[in-house]
Amino acid sequence: MRVTAIVPAAGSGSRMGGAEPKQYLRLAGVPLLSRTLLALTASGCVDHLVLVVPAGQEPRCRAEILVPYGIAAERVVPGGADRQASVGAGLAAAPADSDLILVHDGARPFVTGALIRQALAAAAEAGGAVVAVPVTDTIKRADETGTIRETPARAGLWAAQTPQAFQARLFREAHQRAQADGFRSTDDSALVERLGCPIRLVPGSRDNLKVTTVLDLILAEALLRAAAGGG
Amino acid sequence: MRVTAIVPAAGSGSRMGGAEPKQYLRLAGVPLLSRTLLALTASGCVDHLVLVVPAGQEPRCRAEILVPYGIAAERVVPGGADRQASVGAGLAAAPADSDLILVHDGARPFVTGALIRQALAAAAEAGGAVVAVPVTDTIKRADETGTIRETPARAGLWAAQTPQAFQARLFREAHQRAQADGFRSTDDSALVERLGCPIRLVPGSRDNLKVTTVLDLILAEALLRAAAGGG
Repeated sequence: MRVTAIVPAAGSGSRMGGAEPKQYLRLAGVPLLSRTLLALTASGCVDHLVLVVPAGQEPRCRAEILVPYGIAAERVVPGGADRQASVGAGLAAAPADSDLILVHDGARPFVTGALIRQALAAAAEAGGAVVAVPVTDTIKRADETGTIRETPARAGLWAAQTPQAFQARLFREAHQRAQADGFRSTDDSALVERLGCPIRLVPGSRDNLKVTTVLDLILAEALLRAAAGGG
Repeated sequence: MRVTAIVPAAGSGSRMGGAEPKQYLRLAGVPLLSRTLLALTASGCVDHLVLVVPAGQEPRCRAEILVPYGIAAERVVPGGADRQASVGAGLAAAPADSDLILVHDGARPFVTGALIRQALAAAAEAGGAVVAVPVTDTIKRADETGTIRETPARAGLWAAQTPQAFQARLFREAHQRAQADGFRSTDDSALVERLGCPIRLVPGSRDNLKVTTVLDLILAEALLRAAAGGG
């Protein structure tokens, strides 16, 4: 099975509040994005790597994210106007011989090899797989007036993370159909679900956090210290 | 309007992993629980304070949580087997002249006076109010086999926090009915919702976090430093 990993990292990172594009944010000296890519390559499961960055940032990303850490990404491609467009751009650049597509957020550096393997195995079997954690908050559904209409049972509710993995043919079809139908989603799996394909949940970990705010960065630094045994 | 705040702090705190009961955990030298109670009293909105702690811990809580910080809690009562029982114990100890009941987690020290006032005002008007934040994760509903059945639209989904506020008569009735029906929930509002009473959402803040894990504690310390202007 040939696996292509698509890493969308084309967002503006406006929630970080800094002047520097979030692609170059460092976590204990190493760019977050480099850490994420290193975690993917270290898994030993990824045959091809496609990195999606803001248009115009390709040379700088190669020079600062890839080269200093010896990361071999076949393609560094410009992203689109939203996540779906960026993943679609990555998919267009994926080698034709890919059997499985793994999509993983550039801002989730703590992904483990075990999670990647489980997502790929589940996708190979079922068609698609989404790493997710059980929802711990009580969820409420409100109407437009701000009045609670429903408290959905928490059992069976999961918060999606990445990696998400899909059979390549299915994922290409899902993107084409969404494009044709004008369906937009920030959720990669939703495109495949609407084809009626069964998607498996793979239990993830809260440590696999997405670093999108300054507080997340502080938390990520703490996780890194804990992983290094420094508490 | 006479306001009684019930603060459930009777949990075991097993997720902290320490030997010390979580009630005595300190955040920058001050017990988390003391910080939460001080935030409530500082709001100027609370007429009576009822603290619910694990049975047998009442004297130690008075000595370590209340007295050193000059916090005047009318009642310190033993909790029950679950959250509903603990809040029920607090409610039984609430003065009969209470018009509004405010329930607030002992482990949410960053609650603001503005949030408390908004929750009380909404409850006075509508019957009940829940502070909540919009859900940012993609939520999936899965069946028992771990297959995704639904991706509920994220618009209109909120994650409940505390404070939650209720008209006292309504909240007492809700607890009595739940008791009579054998209905159990970790969610205070759910007891009132099932009476058919409209409950308002009050937009909260991510900073109003519940400190239940060691990572939350690290994050709380970072929030405290940020609030102090230390970055």
